[in-house]
Amino acid sequence: MNYRMILSVMGIVLLLLAGFLLLPCVIALIYAEGDFSALFTTVILCLVLGSILFFLRPKEERRRMHAREGFVMVTLSWIVISLAGALPFYLNGAIPSYLDAVFETVSGFTTTGASILPNVEAVPHGLLLWRSFTHWIGGMGVLVFMLAVVPMSGESIYLLRAESPGPSVSKMVPKMRTSAAITYGIYIAMTLLLILLYQLGRLFGWGNISLFDSLCLAFGTAGTGGFAVLCDGLASYSVYEQGLTTVFMILFGVNFSIYFFLLCKEYRLAWQNSELKCYIGIILAAITLITLNLFFTGGYFSTVSETIHHVAFSVGSVITTTGYGTVDFAQWPEFSRTILVLLMVVGACAGSTGGGMKVSRILILFKAQRAEIRRMLHPHAVEIMTMDKKKVEKNAIQGTHAFLTVYFAILLISVALISLDNLGTETTVTAVFATLNNIGPGTSAIVGPFGNFAVFSPLSKLVLIFNMLCGRLELFPILLFLRPGTWKKN
Amino acid sequence: MNYRMILSVMGIVLLLLAGFLLLPCVIALIYAEGDFSALFTTVILCLVLGSILFFLRPKEERRRMHAREGFVMVTLSWIVISLAGALPFYLNGAIPSYLDAVFETVSGFTTTGASILPNVEAVPHGLLLWRSFTHWIGGMGVLVFMLAVVPMSGESIYLLRAESPGPSVSKMVPKMRTSAAITYGIYIAMTLLLILLYQLGRLFGWGNISLFDSLCLAFGTAGTGGFAVLCDGLASYSVYEQGLTTVFMILFGVNFSIYFFLLCKEYRLAWQNSELKCYIGIILAAITLITLNLFFTGGYFSTVSETIHHVAFSVGSVITTTGYGTVDFAQWPEFSRTILVLLMVVGACAGSTGGGMKVSRILILFKAQRAEIRRMLHPHAVEIMTMDKKKVEKNAIQGTHAFLTVYFAILLISVALISLDNLGTETTVTAVFATLNNIGPGTSAIVGPFGNFAVFSPLSKLVLIFNMLCGRLELFPILLFLRPGTWKKN
Repeated sequence: MNYRMILSVMGIVLLLLAGFLLLPCVIALIYAEGDFSALFTTVILCLVLGSILFFLRPKEERRRMHAREGFVMVTLSWIVISLAGALPFYLNGAIPSYLDAVFETVSGFTTTGASILPNVEAVPHGLLLWRSFTHWIGGMGVLVFMLAVVPMSGESIYLLRAESPGPSVSKMVPKMRTSAAITYGIYIAMTLLLILLYQLGRLFGWGNISLFDSLCLAFGTAGTGGFAVLCDGLASYSVYEQGLTTVFMILFGVNFSIYFFLLCKEYRLAWQNSELKCYIGIILAAITLITLNLFFTGGYFSTVSETIHHVAFSVGSVITTTGYGTVDFAQWPEFSRTILVLLMVVGACAGSTGGGMKVSRILILFKAQRAEIRRMLHPHAVEIMTMDKKKVEKNAIQGTHAFLTVYFAILLISVALISLDNLGTETTVTAVFATLNNIGPGTSAIVGPFGNFAVFSPLSKLVLIFNMLCGRLELFPILLFLRPGTWKKN
Repeated sequence: MNYRMILSVMGIVLLLLAGFLLLPCVIALIYAEGDFSALFTTVILCLVLGSILFFLRPKEERRRMHAREGFVMVTLSWIVISLAGALPFYLNGAIPSYLDAVFETVSGFTTTGASILPNVEAVPHGLLLWRSFTHWIGGMGVLVFMLAVVPMSGESIYLLRAESPGPSVSKMVPKMRTSAAITYGIYIAMTLLLILLYQLGRLFGWGNISLFDSLCLAFGTAGTGGFAVLCDGLASYSVYEQGLTTVFMILFGVNFSIYFFLLCKEYRLAWQNSELKCYIGIILAAITLITLNLFFTGGYFSTVSETIHHVAFSVGSVITTTGYGTVDFAQWPEFSRTILVLLMVVGACAGSTGGGMKVSRILILFKAQRAEIRRMLHPHAVEIMTMDKKKVEKNAIQGTHAFLTVYFAILLISVALISLDNLGTETTVTAVFATLNNIGPGTSAIVGPFGNFAVFSPLSKLVLIFNMLCGRLELFPILLFLRPGTWKKN
């Protein structure tokens, strides 16, 4: 294990974090609500510690990495940014318990959006912006950012692979650094577009959202995070602002390669993408089913268009694992809530900022099972599985199966541990679903879009933190990190 | 597709069913409660229809079968015995709705034990015995019985494979017919031993169970079914009778090959079996965890030995998927209930009469994931997975993964459909768990050990019937049966 290499990368990560923290520092100076010192102290700490670690960097010829260094680096850097990123909340006193502050920060970076804050409107603006900004940073991945800006040698593909969501990494161009830069470029452009559209709405009188709120909501939407800045989530924004958020949540749940195809004018490749078609199909089906269910149950909304508006928002929010709420879907009938839980499991597309299992994994599992059934009837036939006319490698299928197994195991064990809190099955189960899939809210009143996670015991909070990290890093880096064999000498 | 061959086997199955029905006919004659005519009419119908179908049997040289005929036969024969076996309840009027009668019968044959009867004590004795006897017949498999008694030609291994629980068929001896006969021999001997021990208890004054009750309970225990003959389940039997049931439930959840090893004096093979060790380990761990949970929560039992007695019973009942209850575990704290749900998923050993995923599948999944993680670190290493010092074939691993995927998919879709009844998450989810794993009771008050399934809508009952059949036949025969491609000409 190349410890000096790992530590020096942690140094770079801390330096980057210090850089990111400058934005909330500026906001804190503007609003002058006393949160500047906590934020700036954290910047200084990150700079000092980051520089020390960075100077441990080995010489050029000793920077070789293997797979295990990659996995360890990814896990460790997420732990480091969470522990450091929690400091401003704790130092300021906005979140008095450090465990709670870490929970909130992990929830931010992993783009979960589950909050322990009972009254978010009491938090100073600098910290609020930092809270939403963590979504944006975590959405595309802090190491992917590092790859885009810091010249790295060694087999750093492992980093990209470990931090990118989905069953296989899609490099847009052969050079990894360019790939990472293009991805971040699209990400920044789309975020700026969303902020612009929010503000255009204010100009045309379609809404009245402040620039500060637009920034926070745009960060949360882009990272498919879900932290809001008002206690009632997005309920009090205008229909235009809510609708815009619906559209952009769904857009940020799409594989970013699709946007790259569009930029390269490869329209056929984009429209024929089977994951995209499946993703859109699932969204439309879910909206239809829930709208019908609410309509036949009656008493939820006064008009059909209002129903569709809020159902589309909720479906977009849940499948992309954002977790924003305009209405309290914890009050909807059981069938609608169950559909939402199914969407939580499916999640967004691979290579997007969304969480969950990812649509492409569901597709691979579905095709693998069809092949398995054919194999039962014709044991000696040779089958080749394809997706988008490309062969799906055996490793990808095996990896997807492993993912499902581990996912199921972590799910069950987490439910068992959290059930010790005795808060009721739906709360327990959907809290695990909501964190493991990086959604945020569950579907029970306690952890629903208008509830919060403060009620859990410290043990449960640790389990939920573990779930959020497992969800964001897609299980295996964390498992490898925890496995003693990884740390043994070769 | 060899239709004549399939129909003739259905004929044999109906003739065997007529034979099995003679036992409840005798009981009905003894108790003379008016249920004889319904039972005997069914015997006649089965004899007539069975004989007609049997005469469709093709000539010797045309009896060849392929995999698909095997799967279709298995599924179809389970549908046939369920539809025919439900007739006595319906004709007698004990269950006025035919759908409910089919639900009860499927629940019987699949050894689920979920009941729609609100007052089981009002049912005549002949029908009650038939209800419990279906557990015994379904436990080891009606086609396995057929293989043991009817000389079959053709590749009838497909039948055994499709009806035997577990990831791979363990033939005890090379000749299949002998294997099936040995299995049934052990099964009959152990059932008789249990009846004898129940009656010995009465002789020594350790209990007061009637011969009729011993028969029914022994059938339910042997098949790991769970239908009781009293409204309060097993609550009013003596400690000796309950303890005896605990032991035998756990024994019937063991792979029957182990008993064959013991008979052959191959003690080492038996004790070193990793599935057996794991099964016992899980049982002990679950008993410990639940006992501690109940002890620290307080107020459930007055003494430690009483706690352990009832916890051991419940754990044995749930992991073997029997579903008997001495106490209402739906009232236990959430952690204990969650542990029970985990046991439902694990299930008993392969090659036993129990349901669930089977311990060996869990072991294979666990080992496959360990190998997968190693593969991530060393992509070019070649791994060979072993269990009990034998290589686990790639096909078995692939099949187990396919099983988990389909299991998860059926689970989620069933929950979505049943949630339309709006009975609450725990009821919905555990009803699906309890039927898909062939347990019987769930862990909510409505479907708990002292609740029943009458409350569900007809659609939900159909879904639950589908789940029970999927659970017993281990998913794939049913899927193959429903897949249009299976029925196409080659």
